[in-house]
Amino acid sequence: MSNESRAEVLARLPLRDDLRGRTPYGAPQLEVPVRLNTNENSYDVPGEVVAAILDGVRQQARHLNRYPDREFTGLREDLANYLGHELEADQIWAANGSNEVLQQLLQAFAGPGRTVLGFTPSYSMHPIITAGTGATWVDGKRGKKVQPTDDPAQFDLHVEETVAQIKEHRPHVTFLCSPNNPTGTALDLEVVKAAYDATDGIVIVDEAYHEFARVGTPSALSLLEGRERLVVSRTMSKAFALAGVRLGYLAAHPAVNDAVRLVRLPYHLSSLTQAAARAALWHSDVLLDTVEVIKSERDRVVTSVRELGLSPAPSDANFVLIGGLNDEKAIWRSLLSRGVLIRDVGLPGFLRVTAGTPAENTTFLDALADSLLDAPVPA
Amino acid sequence: MSNESRAEVLARLPLRDDLRGRTPYGAPQLEVPVRLNTNENSYDVPGEVVAAILDGVRQQARHLNRYPDREFTGLREDLANYLGHELEADQIWAANGSNEVLQQLLQAFAGPGRTVLGFTPSYSMHPIITAGTGATWVDGKRGKKVQPTDDPAQFDLHVEETVAQIKEHRPHVTFLCSPNNPTGTALDLEVVKAAYDATDGIVIVDEAYHEFARVGTPSALSLLEGRERLVVSRTMSKAFALAGVRLGYLAAHPAVNDAVRLVRLPYHLSSLTQAAARAALWHSDVLLDTVEVIKSERDRVVTSVRELGLSPAPSDANFVLIGGLNDEKAIWRSLLSRGVLIRDVGLPGFLRVTAGTPAENTTFLDALADSLLDAPVPA
Repeated sequence: MSNESRAEVLARLPLRDDLRGRTPYGAPQLEVPVRLNTNENSYDVPGEVVAAILDGVRQQARHLNRYPDREFTGLREDLANYLGHELEADQIWAANGSNEVLQQLLQAFAGPGRTVLGFTPSYSMHPIITAGTGATWVDGKRGKKVQPTDDPAQFDLHVEETVAQIKEHRPHVTFLCSPNNPTGTALDLEVVKAAYDATDGIVIVDEAYHEFARVGTPSALSLLEGRERLVVSRTMSKAFALAGVRLGYLAAHPAVNDAVRLVRLPYHLSSLTQAAARAALWHSDVLLDTVEVIKSERDRVVTSVRELGLSPAPSDANFVLIGGLNDEKAIWRSLLSRGVLIRDVGLPGFLRVTAGTPAENTTFLDALADSLLDAPVPA
Repeated sequence: MSNESRAEVLARLPLRDDLRGRTPYGAPQLEVPVRLNTNENSYDVPGEVVAAILDGVRQQARHLNRYPDREFTGLREDLANYLGHELEADQIWAANGSNEVLQQLLQAFAGPGRTVLGFTPSYSMHPIITAGTGATWVDGKRGKKVQPTDDPAQFDLHVEETVAQIKEHRPHVTFLCSPNNPTGTALDLEVVKAAYDATDGIVIVDEAYHEFARVGTPSALSLLEGRERLVVSRTMSKAFALAGVRLGYLAAHPAVNDAVRLVRLPYHLSSLTQAAARAALWHSDVLLDTVEVIKSERDRVVTSVRELGLSPAPSDANFVLIGGLNDEKAIWRSLLSRGVLIRDVGLPGFLRVTAGTPAENTTFLDALADSLLDAPVPA
């Protein structure tokens, strides 16, 4: 290996032009006492579920010389049972994280020469996955101009602007996100219905955080019947506390899954992934116990942050978008120096924090109060 | 759900035009006594390795609520140690099966508007992954016209035709495959060197089956030094008997991996995958014990098949391509009726069989002899 820098060699490699100068996606993985930057579930996997996962892996391990069930039939049945809404296994598809689910959908329904619309700010992987599959991303806008400008209501998505932008851009795939990331607020299902009626394309509702929604918040799953172009994606990374297992999934008309089968890499879900996810689903009651605690803690963060004079968005997720920060980059650094890692989502005046354990949240709130003394909110 | 058929709904969905009418990739997953159709390792995972995998999973399970190490640093170190050739961890990349490794390479270096060249017949996923990432596949030809036409030497790949087709098509990515699948024969490294010198693009040598090569067969890993556009891909699905874990990897200049980082989905390798693969690598001596048995059995299949009047290709893999079959589809069905599943790779007059355990191979050879009595070879 020569002493030439990797960057110099990379510049010479026949990389795609549209990738030149980019940096890899990913939040910093820093070793700090309190990590509240990637919306993980802060609770360890309960012992009962650990035992079930180990048992599932034990049953597979001897025969790992064989390829996994390419159709992960048992897992799809378990996911359908979990979701309810009278869903059947052939309406379910899964992959290594919802990112891969979305990538497969875009390979089938978007790709080169096609257009994908999303409403910014939203999950920042949507445009990256779109570009990675060769489709054109259209950065739709959300929200009305509101005063004051630190009001997170500016990020709400309404029927009129959604329909207008769909009609203008005629996308092949439209992304909605509910609860929206990074803002945290669930979407009115009237927006989903109107978006669906306004397009001949696929509509994906990314519900990665749905389990954390406030009481009475309906899921877009309730809209699937009679809407064959509607897809609802979910993940086991958040409420199920299984980010390390990488299991995302979707519910849709079975024909959507037949389309995805044309582009999926065969045997994409390992035997270990299938076994671990199934074990967790069999113990979903235990795993989801933490959801109620996290929701209550999330509400505490919202209230406490507001008491500090800041502007939190109403949250249906396990995180809170905090507005009204004078210098969000200074606050982020100040928090990090106090051992608390949260997320700078690139919105001036805003930061996003995951709702962790009660102790983590208290540490964060105390550190935030101290940081604000260093860099006070605007008068 | 209406009674309308899924096919009718699929026909109405906004699927990409180039996917219409296709069928999903995948060998039949049939429950038969002897499965020799997907080049799996027929040997169960040894108890010592099962224990190590379980131990690795146990150490991860409690903390699966956290995302995995996005850079899988420990796994890359272990893979570099295994490969030797003075490779370092930053020259290694991995993903969920070598299919995903290849997909990521094509997303970085091929994709829409770019061209990928491979030499047919070869691994049939190469053109499918190319299409899935929006690039244009060029079906290069291999081999000289030889007599008789059932001679597998017609599938050898030579320097002259390789260079000529690269210069004609000017591909952004060129696939070589050694040992080639489905033919089984390793490639002369002179072809790799000549291909590299003939192109400004990336050259990928797919070495999924390298561990089974005959004594003295060098790896393209020995060519990496000084060739920054050369990539060698490998898998743990075959020699390592870990098809169920889904772990493919590559070795290349570190800048190639920096390019892949721009398109990889974050956290694509689960904590379970990383733990299981590392446990297996720590016991590679035990796992690779089966390789010598399989090589010896593969040689027995070659010899026995030749004694039946057929034309097996010289094999450096854990499978044998058998030529000289009068009606390969009839033979395939006849074998299946005798409980033996092998692979119809779409080459008239040829079938491919995996070298299994001694008992499996004997069953196959007996069934083949009986099947030939039903449908004899040409006089």
